[in-house]
Amino acid sequence: MADLYWPGDERAGDLFGERAFLDAMVRIEQTWLAALVAAKIAPADAAATLSEVTDDAADAVAAGAEGGGNPVLDLLAVLREQLRGEGNEAAATWLHRGLTSQDVVDTALVLCAGEALDRIGADLATIADHLGDLADAHRGTVMVGRTLTQYAVPITFGLKAAFWRAGVLDAIEEVDRVRARLTIQAGGAAGTLAALVELADGDLDIAAGVVGDTARDLGLRADVPWHTTRTPITRIGDALATAAQACGRIATDVLTLARPEVGELAEPAGVGRGGSSTMPQKRNPVLSVLIRRAALTTPNLAATLHTAAALADDERPDGAWHAEWPTLRDLARRTAVAASQTAEVTGGLVVDVATMARRATEADGLLAERASMRRLLGRETPAGDTDDPRVYLGLTDSFIDAVARRSDPDRTGVPTDAPRSAR
Amino acid sequence: MADLYWPGDERAGDLFGERAFLDAMVRIEQTWLAALVAAKIAPADAAATLSEVTDDAADAVAAGAEGGGNPVLDLLAVLREQLRGEGNEAAATWLHRGLTSQDVVDTALVLCAGEALDRIGADLATIADHLGDLADAHRGTVMVGRTLTQYAVPITFGLKAAFWRAGVLDAIEEVDRVRARLTIQAGGAAGTLAALVELADGDLDIAAGVVGDTARDLGLRADVPWHTTRTPITRIGDALATAAQACGRIATDVLTLARPEVGELAEPAGVGRGGSSTMPQKRNPVLSVLIRRAALTTPNLAATLHTAAALADDERPDGAWHAEWPTLRDLARRTAVAASQTAEVTGGLVVDVATMARRATEADGLLAERASMRRLLGRETPAGDTDDPRVYLGLTDSFIDAVARRSDPDRTGVPTDAPRSAR
Amino acid sequence: MADLYWPGDERAGDLFGERAFLDAMVRIEQTWLAALVAAKIAPADAAATLSEVTDDAADAVAAGAEGGGNPVLDLLAVLREQLRGEGNEAAATWLHRGLTSQDVVDTALVLCAGEALDRIGADLATIADHLGDLADAHRGTVMVGRTLTQYAVPITFGLKAAFWRAGVLDAIEEVDRVRARLTIQAGGAAGTLAALVELADGDLDIAAGVVGDTARDLGLRADVPWHTTRTPITRIGDALATAAQACGRIATDVLTLARPEVGELAEPAGVGRGGSSTMPQKRNPVLSVLIRRAALTTPNLAATLHTAAALADDERPDGAWHAEWPTLRDLARRTAVAASQTAEVTGGLVVDVATMARRATEADGLLAERASMRRLLGRETPAGDTDDPRVYLGLTDSFIDAVARRSDPDRTGVPTDAPRSAR
Amino acid sequence: MADLYWPGDERAGDLFGERAFLDAMVRIEQTWLAALVAAKIAPADAAATLSEVTDDAADAVAAGAEGGGNPVLDLLAVLREQLRGEGNEAAATWLHRGLTSQDVVDTALVLCAGEALDRIGADLATIADHLGDLADAHRGTVMVGRTLTQYAVPITFGLKAAFWRAGVLDAIEEVDRVRARLTIQAGGAAGTLAALVELADGDLDIAAGVVGDTARDLGLRADVPWHTTRTPITRIGDALATAAQACGRIATDVLTLARPEVGELAEPAGVGRGGSSTMPQKRNPVLSVLIRRAALTTPNLAATLHTAAALADDERPDGAWHAEWPTLRDLARRTAVAASQTAEVTGGLVVDVATMARRATEADGLLAERASMRRLLGRETPAGDTDDPRVYLGLTDSFIDAVARRSDPDRTGVPTDAPRSAR
Repeated sequence: MADLYWPGDERAGDLFGERAFLDAMVRIEQTWLAALVAAKIAPADAAATLSEVTDDAADAVAAGAEGGGNPVLDLLAVLREQLRGEGNEAAATWLHRGLTSQDVVDTALVLCAGEALDRIGADLATIADHLGDLADAHRGTVMVGRTLTQYAVPITFGLKAAFWRAGVLDAIEEVDRVRARLTIQAGGAAGTLAALVELADGDLDIAAGVVGDTARDLGLRADVPWHTTRTPITRIGDALATAAQACGRIATDVLTLARPEVGELAEPAGVGRGGSSTMPQKRNPVLSVLIRRAALTTPNLAATLHTAAALADDERPDGAWHAEWPTLRDLARRTAVAASQTAEVTGGLVVDVATMARRATEADGLLAERASMRRLLGRETPAGDTDDPRVYLGLTDSFIDAVARRSDPDRTGVPTDAPRSAR
Repeated sequence: MADLYWPGDERAGDLFGERAFLDAMVRIEQTWLAALVAAKIAPADAAATLSEVTDDAADAVAAGAEGGGNPVLDLLAVLREQLRGEGNEAAATWLHRGLTSQDVVDTALVLCAGEALDRIGADLATIADHLGDLADAHRGTVMVGRTLTQYAVPITFGLKAAFWRAGVLDAIEEVDRVRARLTIQAGGAAGTLAALVELADGDLDIAAGVVGDTARDLGLRADVPWHTTRTPITRIGDALATAAQACGRIATDVLTLARPEVGELAEPAGVGRGGSSTMPQKRNPVLSVLIRRAALTTPNLAATLHTAAALADDERPDGAWHAEWPTLRDLARRTAVAASQTAEVTGGLVVDVATMARRATEADGLLAERASMRRLLGRETPAGDTDDPRVYLGLTDSFIDAVARRSDPDRTGVPTDAPRSAR
Repeated sequence: MADLYWPGDERAGDLFGERAFLDAMVRIEQTWLAALVAAKIAPADAAATLSEVTDDAADAVAAGAEGGGNPVLDLLAVLREQLRGEGNEAAATWLHRGLTSQDVVDTALVLCAGEALDRIGADLATIADHLGDLADAHRGTVMVGRTLTQYAVPITFGLKAAFWRAGVLDAIEEVDRVRARLTIQAGGAAGTLAALVELADGDLDIAAGVVGDTARDLGLRADVPWHTTRTPITRIGDALATAAQACGRIATDVLTLARPEVGELAEPAGVGRGGSSTMPQKRNPVLSVLIRRAALTTPNLAATLHTAAALADDERPDGAWHAEWPTLRDLARRTAVAASQTAEVTGGLVVDVATMARRATEADGLLAERASMRRLLGRETPAGDTDDPRVYLGLTDSFIDAVARRSDPDRTGVPTDAPRSAR
Repeated sequence: MADLYWPGDERAGDLFGERAFLDAMVRIEQTWLAALVAAKIAPADAAATLSEVTDDAADAVAAGAEGGGNPVLDLLAVLREQLRGEGNEAAATWLHRGLTSQDVVDTALVLCAGEALDRIGADLATIADHLGDLADAHRGTVMVGRTLTQYAVPITFGLKAAFWRAGVLDAIEEVDRVRARLTIQAGGAAGTLAALVELADGDLDIAAGVVGDTARDLGLRADVPWHTTRTPITRIGDALATAAQACGRIATDVLTLARPEVGELAEPAGVGRGGSSTMPQKRNPVLSVLIRRAALTTPNLAATLHTAAALADDERPDGAWHAEWPTLRDLARRTAVAASQTAEVTGGLVVDVATMARRATEADGLLAERASMRRLLGRETPAGDTDDPRVYLGLTDSFIDAVARRSDPDRTGVPTDAPRSAR
């Protein structure tokens, strides 16, 4: 069942869900076991293919997790029973050898995060495309610029879309960066991998090879253990918070501009969307409302990860580590939902060009700054110019172009690449 | 299934769960409908008893919640279909009349919070009892006091337990306070209850009576609508954070004192508890670890509620409201789990009196402050006194007594009730 | 100099400033010394009046605070030198005896908080008065109610002001509550007051009397030490966050309603206020902007206090305690500034009654809910009613009255005091 | 005066102080004016060198900041008066032309951040060097590894230092990354630079050149305006939080290991450091205490920046922007102090090798995992091995080497570069 307390939760599907976490843990044990066999640490007959944990067993694992402080002990019992049921005593014996439960939990978090980052990255790319299209389509769509809620000077809606896009491109950069460096956690009981080395009869290369093989087969990088160096977790948290804020900031603008008094934007209409339980006339911008909700809750989750990281003591933290699991999950799922919703909003955003134009023309004082600049230069303001906000758009199109260039493979900073004043 | 990401989650049972939320909403609609009938706003044949929503229907409601921005619209569809299936068209027609979806969601949150507060309050009371017993039993158990991690002067373990208890009594006070003022939210579309008054043919007393009756039958107070005045929510959040911190602070102390080098406390042993996936000798203080985890994650959730409250705009907030639901749920469930675990820890805490005594006797400098006070007074320090930390316990027992008196019905502040220096 | 990073900071004056903190610490040492003399623990010639610490000495204290981990050690050196310079060796000797530095810092924080709470409480009362006046004055000022940013049903501006006021009254209740229970911290080195008892030659009553006298003379309650039970701090933090949110929520509404497209409210004009560095026509709602800023930063500060409280270990926390000082200061000063600004905004709020009325009349669908209720009842909607939003205000005035009654000495819950439907 | 509420604050010197902020704003105005003249937008006689703002004028600017919502308006008044006093009317006229106050504030924040990042980066590098030395020096220093507070398996102190170092290297990477992309904010009133273009008579290249020249002369990158795309701010915040956590995690470990019962580490002794106001024997680990304090307060400040970014609406946010200034300042100063303190701690850390060795030898069960691995392999455990923890250190030295390689110019991931299990 989707989370009743988080409408739209179903968009995140099984990302970072109970099942995804369990399956990731099983996959890690499976991959590690295979690496042990390949390294000839475990005998050939310990090779096995683990089956998915049944729902009943999963319930038992969850219920038993408190005893061990994490779900791995009980999961191993389930898996060993499974293997013994299949008559594979060797596999039951060799399963998990060399690992500690933190290795399994941390690497499972990373695998779950990887899937979430993939999905979020894809949605952010879609949003960036939508916003690129809006920026192009609305280069000529003049509207009022507003600062501190009041009219300032003219802008175009294309420029606003481009600036939204700049934030989304930033988020993509952060998401891609952490996605590319997802790393296995493999340290054994206290970060020395001593048990593995013991099993490898002291051969460090063979032991390191098991880690490297497992990482490779899981699609992860290998590195030194990070059981108490939690930057891999806080970096993911920060990237997710950055993605949520890129979406939230768009939603905040849409909500203002979709107010009936403003009427410059509207969310795409959807079947059964935005209705009211009592007011038939209502069409609420529910997607933006829900996106904004995510942006209001994710920053403090990211902060909890940093606090936990600062308290990561000894060779396994006494509570700070455990605080990370649901925090990272919620950060990931909520950001995934928000990105999906934002893709929908930006993909069907209704732009009321006429209202924008009318307001920009009628708004008092929108060209007052221009007049004051012209007075400074001793220039008259031609009568015809007075009411046309398009005469005062400055570098608007250059900025749209610059944002567009950013997602090019060989993008260059802008406007630094503009001609210098070589005088 | 218990939350795999939050070991011990099953202790919270169905508190603030999916089903609890749904059932609360159904109960509210049911109670309101009955009040409409009782007030003769709805016809007598609209009386009906709503059945529990089936799991399938619950799934549909959750999945449909995004469309309306909250689950009420789809829940109403399910309930109306249910009523029509039973041939009760009148009830289907009159269901929810006068309410808005925020009324239902907010009041359901309050009902769920009430159950959680009851459970947490009961566990806190148990903890306070345990700590009272420990304080009494260990009045004579001298141990080192530590400040900034270093030995300071002697205390007793009874005093430490009493101070832990003081925090728990504070938490009980906060929990009781918010429990006693749980309030229905009933404002209709924009906080005016206009639809209800319309249905009551303009009779304000009848309309107010429907609210009062519903509140009474739900065990809640009635008050003006608080759809945008979110103090009822932030107060609950603050009380929960206070409860979690009272538990967390105990766990933090237990974790330090259960370190093998310290060895003054140990968690109660439990079957299958505290084991390791690879190290057979380990007995980890897992309950304290998990309690501390809660204390590290709850404060930022309470903060999110305050931020949401500050952004509660218009007559229904555009995202800030929605941010509250899972935040309050997580705060409540995690605090409930932590309180339950703390009750278990305090109920079976193993106190190593001998180790405490030995350390207090052997620790260098524990009586250095005393010696300096005596030098100030020009007194010799009797040779026999030098090594006995019990000679330097000051008001320890008075403080234990004072904390004990606090939970008495007619407790008085202490030590203000001590004789004044009228000399 | 006012804080350049926090415009309006000067409104907080010296509340919780460097000087206020120092002066409070000096006052505590002075009061404690007098109590030692009164209790005949210290000799009569140890009586002394401490002078204010000079700016140079204050600088030295601040610069030396790192060495001791807090400023008390260096402050004592300054004060003792002062006393010795006056030839009062006895006072220099007896100063601070029986206290520990945490006692001084914690009690100073409480004294600073007391002044801040007084100021904030007074400003909140002013705001409540202003809002009461607005609620009364605008009982007939109909305006659109907005939910999820869209038009819903009619309300009055009086009702909106009354709901704002309900939040402010809640905040006053919280502020008054914590103000009334400000408590001295006096526990000595590890919460036993052993040094004091030693100095009192073992007489517990005399020792308790010193604490009681000191508390009384500082205007504080006495209680058991709370050096590691940080509820006294988190309660203040929560009350301040509640006050900031009550202001922030008003500011958020003002900002929306002062948008030029809405034009229903405006901040009071002020000389030199709301101008722009380049746009002569601008009149920015700067006070509301700055209030909202406070509301966005205070919740996370309150959360930090809860986290610190959960980590309050041993007999003096190793960092969690130190985290509280600037956090509480910032919470208090920012809330004080916000309350003062909100008093100014609410005291001069410009209400555009005509715009409100026009919009409420013209807004599509504002009476759609009413029509649907009437259809349900089988009633025609009289043609003349269709456009008059005043016909659909429900319990609006009752709610305004109920909020007004809340600040009465013997207020009773509402609308529970409304007649029950005894039909 | 150093901040009395933040002992050690003086270590941050004038980083991100009042004066630094003012001076940065003056420098920006100066550089921009020079660029206007160089671009022949302003006349040659508008060239001027701005003097430092006097303390009195600075006070006036701070006190006046509320009126404009930020300090720029009043600063300009001061600077123009200064220029007019020098008879340079042209400079007074051309000062700030084309900029808006947000450009000045944001770019000043960036300049202040740059200095803070430089200082923090340098201290982190020193810490990394210290830790590298400790890792090398203590390759053979065996100690117990602890997980969930209990003994697990042996490690070396060199390994612990190397893992601390890994976190510091991560922080350096984050700090360097944001340091390298500090970017000017130059967008004019609403992000179009329309005033500048107007002054440049419509020549976009000349206008862009002014931005580019100013950025270059300020040592910043140029890019499109980010007035409402706040990633440049949140990235800095996240990097600072990462740096604080890298320090905080070391301090947390030091505090545990410096407990008298553990006695494996001690802070470097310092004159006048770690004393107590009443207990002569105390030597408190005050630096670690204060570092940990920073790590407990910085995460929530970083979160506030993300929340503000999500609320960055219109073309200048109505409060969210203002929330950033002191938040970023506090984040930067506190992290700078913590980094400096950590450099001192790591530079003089006292390692009690003998105590570590003794405990590792005596601790029960430290080789139990090894024995169970050997049983699995069917191997006897030689009697002599039983008590020597050095036989069970696994990949410890490889990991130390791998962390050491990380800071090499051409570092490669480890242990992926270890030989694969050649099958």
